[in-house]
Amino acid sequence: MPSTHTITRRVEFSDTDLAGIMHFSNFFRFMETAEHDLYRQLGLKLVTKNADGSSIGWPRVSASCDYKRPLKFEDEVEVTLTVAKKTEKAITYEFVFKKKGEPEECARGSVTIVCCSFRDGRMQATFIPKDFSDKLEVAG
Amino acid sequence: MPSTHTITRRVEFSDTDLAGIMHFSNFFRFMETAEHDLYRQLGLKLVTKNADGSSIGWPRVSASCDYKRPLKFEDEVEVTLTVAKKTEKAITYEFVFKKKGEPEECARGSVTIVCCSFRDGRMQATFIPKDFSDKLEVAG
Amino acid sequence: MPSTHTITRRVEFSDTDLAGIMHFSNFFRFMETAEHDLYRQLGLKLVTKNADGSSIGWPRVSASCDYKRPLKFEDEVEVTLTVAKKTEKAITYEFVFKKKGEPEECARGSVTIVCCSFRDGRMQATFIPKDFSDKLEVAG
Amino acid sequence: MPSTHTITRRVEFSDTDLAGIMHFSNFFRFMETAEHDLYRQLGLKLVTKNADGSSIGWPRVSASCDYKRPLKFEDEVEVTLTVAKKTEKAITYEFVFKKKGEPEECARGSVTIVCCSFRDGRMQATFIPKDFSDKLEVAG
Repeated sequence: MPSTHTITRRVEFSDTDLAGIMHFSNFFRFMETAEHDLYRQLGLKLVTKNADGSSIGWPRVSASCDYKRPLKFEDEVEVTLTVAKKTEKAITYEFVFKKKGEPEECARGSVTIVCCSFRDGRMQATFIPKDFSDKLEVAG
Repeated sequence: MPSTHTITRRVEFSDTDLAGIMHFSNFFRFMETAEHDLYRQLGLKLVTKNADGSSIGWPRVSASCDYKRPLKFEDEVEVTLTVAKKTEKAITYEFVFKKKGEPEECARGSVTIVCCSFRDGRMQATFIPKDFSDKLEVAG
Repeated sequence: MPSTHTITRRVEFSDTDLAGIMHFSNFFRFMETAEHDLYRQLGLKLVTKNADGSSIGWPRVSASCDYKRPLKFEDEVEVTLTVAKKTEKAITYEFVFKKKGEPEECARGSVTIVCCSFRDGRMQATFIPKDFSDKLEVAG
Repeated sequence: MPSTHTITRRVEFSDTDLAGIMHFSNFFRFMETAEHDLYRQLGLKLVTKNADGSSIGWPRVSASCDYKRPLKFEDEVEVTLTVAKKTEKAITYEFVFKKKGEPEECARGSVTIVCCSFRDGRMQATFIPKDFSDKLEVAG
């Protein structure tokens, strides 16, 4: 029952902008990549189709990031996810960005997702499935 | 029955890369925006859901671009689409990029799309719907 | 001396993800587009090169967004920027997203930028230039 | 002196669009990632600053892609670059996309880059540096 998970991702040319650094919006893409990689490691499905035609998904309700040091083209970045909070219907992840092998934080982010059922184009918050609840543990 | 269509789009900060110019992949996004704007003007639906649960869509089968002059942040770009070819199941569009009010071409691209029906996760080429065929005319 | 500014931007196909809605990271790109459009309207330059080879720019130090209703392909979105806070070296903008002509908020975001001088690859916080300070007024 | 190079890259959620597949523009980003990874393996610098203040870079002059099978979220993709052509000032790379462990091609692309010197905001085609020329061999 992991409460943290780390991925390594290299900053690609198309992640940068004319200021020569990773565009600030792309930190959120990297956070999501860490989250999805965790699910894959745990055998959790991001989207579940139910027999009745409805499905279960995880819309984001909030996202934030504090930027401390810029990331540049070709930097190898370690993004460490921590399960910060878990309620009946929502999960909050926190993320720390560091260049590989360096102690300083480059950025620190947070994302809160809500478990929703989708049916006929409408969505409604619902209880977190048991496998997610069992496998994701809030960091002590 | 138009055979050409022009949109104006400004290069945004996030469209650029560390070389200080619009990233070459983003020209393809601008082409697509011109194509979809044409459909909207003509009242054509990009995706059609059929009563039997299948749907009609337009996957791209090829795309190309020749780059002549770089586009920079805040440049206002005119993208002119021309209907270059129309067969029973496919359409080829050509695109010319110019900075607003300037005669020189910055880029020239081409995209070929195929009409496909999607059913149960499988897709198959099919005939172009009559409204598309009627409303899109190959440039003379 | 404006304290708010609104842009209209249509959700493009490439802004969406497989969930059929605008990807959550792209809200931050839209916020930036509103910010840059404000500067353009006011005649403010985003990047200033000084005679001594240094330059003035505006790195983001924090960004956040609360998501309330999803945005879909082709939605016309009004993004309204408000100047929320101005200190000697930093500015905080707030952003409200609404579908054009609809009263409900779809999202609400915030971005804080710091004025920095860049020289020889190093950056340091500095005082906001007078033209920015004069032209941007905190909402009452 | 390699003439081919393969990278593996997983399709991320933000690479997809509402059609549920990787957006066609992102294949070009993957091609570029393979190209840059090759340079890194060979110790070649993408951008070289000269002592006189000019620099050497590699603008793209053309890019194309044929799409055969869609790529989906979480697909692991092998992108194989081949050095297809080398002239005094330009290089053409070809790219084949396959899902890891599967024999069928999903896409096939091509990119031509030109060696340019940049000085005072102007660029001019120039001869390929000796280290690039020595280390990149056209496939037999």
